[in-house]
Amino acid sequence: MTDIDFAVLGTGGIGRRTLEVSQHKEGLTPVAACDRNGIAIDRGGLDVEELLDATEGNIASGPQSGPEQSSSAELRSADSRAAKPRDDGDQPRDGDDRGDTDGSNAATDGGAAADAAASAADAAASSGVKQTGEGAGVVASEQGEPTETPIDDVIEISDAVDAVLIALPNLEHDFIPNIADRFAEAAYSGVLIDVLKRSRVIGMLDERADQLEDAGITFVCGAGATPGFLTGAAALAVQSFVEVHEVDIWWGVGLKSGYEDNRGTVREDIAHLDGYDVETARDLSDEEIEEIIEAHDGVLEFHDMEHADDVLLERAGICDAEDVTVGGILDVRSDEKPTTTTVSVTGTTFDGERATNTFELGDETSMAANVNGPALGYLKAAVRRNRAGEHGVFGPAELMPSF
Amino acid sequence: MTDIDFAVLGTGGIGRRTLEVSQHKEGLTPVAACDRNGIAIDRGGLDVEELLDATEGNIASGPQSGPEQSSSAELRSADSRAAKPRDDGDQPRDGDDRGDTDGSNAATDGGAAADAAASAADAAASSGVKQTGEGAGVVASEQGEPTETPIDDVIEISDAVDAVLIALPNLEHDFIPNIADRFAEAAYSGVLIDVLKRSRVIGMLDERADQLEDAGITFVCGAGATPGFLTGAAALAVQSFVEVHEVDIWWGVGLKSGYEDNRGTVREDIAHLDGYDVETARDLSDEEIEEIIEAHDGVLEFHDMEHADDVLLERAGICDAEDVTVGGILDVRSDEKPTTTTVSVTGTTFDGERATNTFELGDETSMAANVNGPALGYLKAAVRRNRAGEHGVFGPAELMPSF
Repeated sequence: MTDIDFAVLGTGGIGRRTLEVSQHKEGLTPVAACDRNGIAIDRGGLDVEELLDATEGNIASGPQSGPEQSSSAELRSADSRAAKPRDDGDQPRDGDDRGDTDGSNAATDGGAAADAAASAADAAASSGVKQTGEGAGVVASEQGEPTETPIDDVIEISDAVDAVLIALPNLEHDFIPNIADRFAEAAYSGVLIDVLKRSRVIGMLDERADQLEDAGITFVCGAGATPGFLTGAAALAVQSFVEVHEVDIWWGVGLKSGYEDNRGTVREDIAHLDGYDVETARDLSDEEIEEIIEAHDGVLEFHDMEHADDVLLERAGICDAEDVTVGGILDVRSDEKPTTTTVSVTGTTFDGERATNTFELGDETSMAANVNGPALGYLKAAVRRNRAGEHGVFGPAELMPSF
Repeated sequence: MTDIDFAVLGTGGIGRRTLEVSQHKEGLTPVAACDRNGIAIDRGGLDVEELLDATEGNIASGPQSGPEQSSSAELRSADSRAAKPRDDGDQPRDGDDRGDTDGSNAATDGGAAADAAASAADAAASSGVKQTGEGAGVVASEQGEPTETPIDDVIEISDAVDAVLIALPNLEHDFIPNIADRFAEAAYSGVLIDVLKRSRVIGMLDERADQLEDAGITFVCGAGATPGFLTGAAALAVQSFVEVHEVDIWWGVGLKSGYEDNRGTVREDIAHLDGYDVETARDLSDEEIEEIIEAHDGVLEFHDMEHADDVLLERAGICDAEDVTVGGILDVRSDEKPTTTTVSVTGTTFDGERATNTFELGDETSMAANVNGPALGYLKAAVRRNRAGEHGVFGPAELMPSF
């Protein structure tokens, strides 16, 4: 396989760590990275170390209250597309109740490895945790240039790019789908990959499957830890069986040292606790959140979370979405995982035995390791598919041996 | 994905169970199956139940001592190619010491799920365990016709076939590679897939990669349980890491009820015990084997077995072959697994943590379930690759997200 040149949209937690992990991988060259205010491009390969050093603790973001008040014309223009009527008459293939209700707790579903890492970017970008004023973010790097149109700038050089990792904060539901539209309209024909968690967004990408396929784009959605790594593990574990009864994904995250960066995740997680929902969690003050955490001694446990693993396993033909359960434990006062991240797949073999196959992640693996490694693994697999002419929308489980 | 029509070469343990498992899978239609003396073809789909019922305990095979004395002109003609000089000047890409030494214990490496099941075919076919004389095997089915050229017969209808599962007994090292040659020369352009275990054979297939690629064949080698299922699990488990230190594959097989069918495996397994090798094991009488089993109370434990998992993980760029260890326990007096089949992958994350990710198969999953499900899963994935224009030789780990 020849080399892969890729771009990263967003330099929050996932974007930065992906750039870092790519330095350990053969054949992966980051050629562009952008945030709201700046872009760094080097077709020969970015100096990742310089970029990370220059932007450490220095992530460009909008003001406290999020995109509506954002000063970024680029993000506003992306957002504004959400209000426009869609050009085609397609109905969401996944527009069922699950998709809708899931949308409500969509932004992070917090706690799981992918969530926490994704929300590190959120927290940084939408709460301005790390903002340091003028010159923040990519423009602080020697390689960075200021821009008001970072995504357009990446699109402009996309003929030199094999894959684009979308590591942007969770904004409107259709933010990532709209970015897909823009790449498709610009005749980009490589890979787009995200680490989203929202079932609803996957439905919205499915609406665009034909358009993406026509453009020659291979879009892989939900390719972080969960969904992503653990969805793939489930897709492999079912191979012993002819019928799958239950897929149980259970995660542990210890977040003491990452807590400051992941306040957004914790807020979203609270929406999954009894007595809360996304709206009430969104309205909580920081003090109220601290009180809730205090009341739980820093350990939040979640059951029956809505996660796109269900939709992604169903679309791969492995089981019904309702047979998938996701839960876990988040400890914000320890870096030790409070429980072992485990995928348990129960099924029946062709010879009539009921059994459970399991996949466990070592407790020492950080959420970041379990997001960024798989994201790049799926990215490489997707580039191969793309080059072979397989275009459209894919979930991680569809990049595995078929069930 | 549209339907897949496939053929099975060999109706020993793997062939028969693959036909059975395919009945549980959507979009898989078996259209041909053959053994030494007969072939059943139905382009609309074989009546698998009738075929299995008619051939149960009734597998066509040659005489006790193997292909040299075989009455089958077809197998002899395939074998005879082994002695012919190769047409091209390619050197084996994998022709190192490992390949050579591995070849010596190549035939089954016994005990592991794939091995035992593969050797069920061996035992039936080369020891004649189930031979019942005239009319044995496929010809006993209403759908069967006698033939002296079963493989040629399948080649003849191969335009109607998307994939061919090679579930033939372990004969000469180059038996399967020679079959690949024949399909390539006949301008077949679909999938070939086997469940072999010999590192040496993979090197021999690699020698043919260009020829297979030119023909448009996608050859997936070693796609049973181990190598295969467990190799894939290792390839996924490494995604947390930037460096892989060790892959440890440890299997348990309880074979009480399958013992009669798997004498060949047990013989091969004995070659891995201290004081034995392939040659001495081959020369043991059945009585001597029983004595050895008796001396071990029916439980044979193996360490540092040579298995193609190592070569297949190395060729996928995951780790060095020498970092892979394979061992396990075979209990011929119980159907309970004497130990849990486990893949342990130890590596270091990008953030410097050393950890071990594990994949465990439920003890109730039979070796057959863990061979045939993955074989068909890889077959389906391979057809997709084939249709997208990806041709040549692939290991299971190469059908996973890339490392």
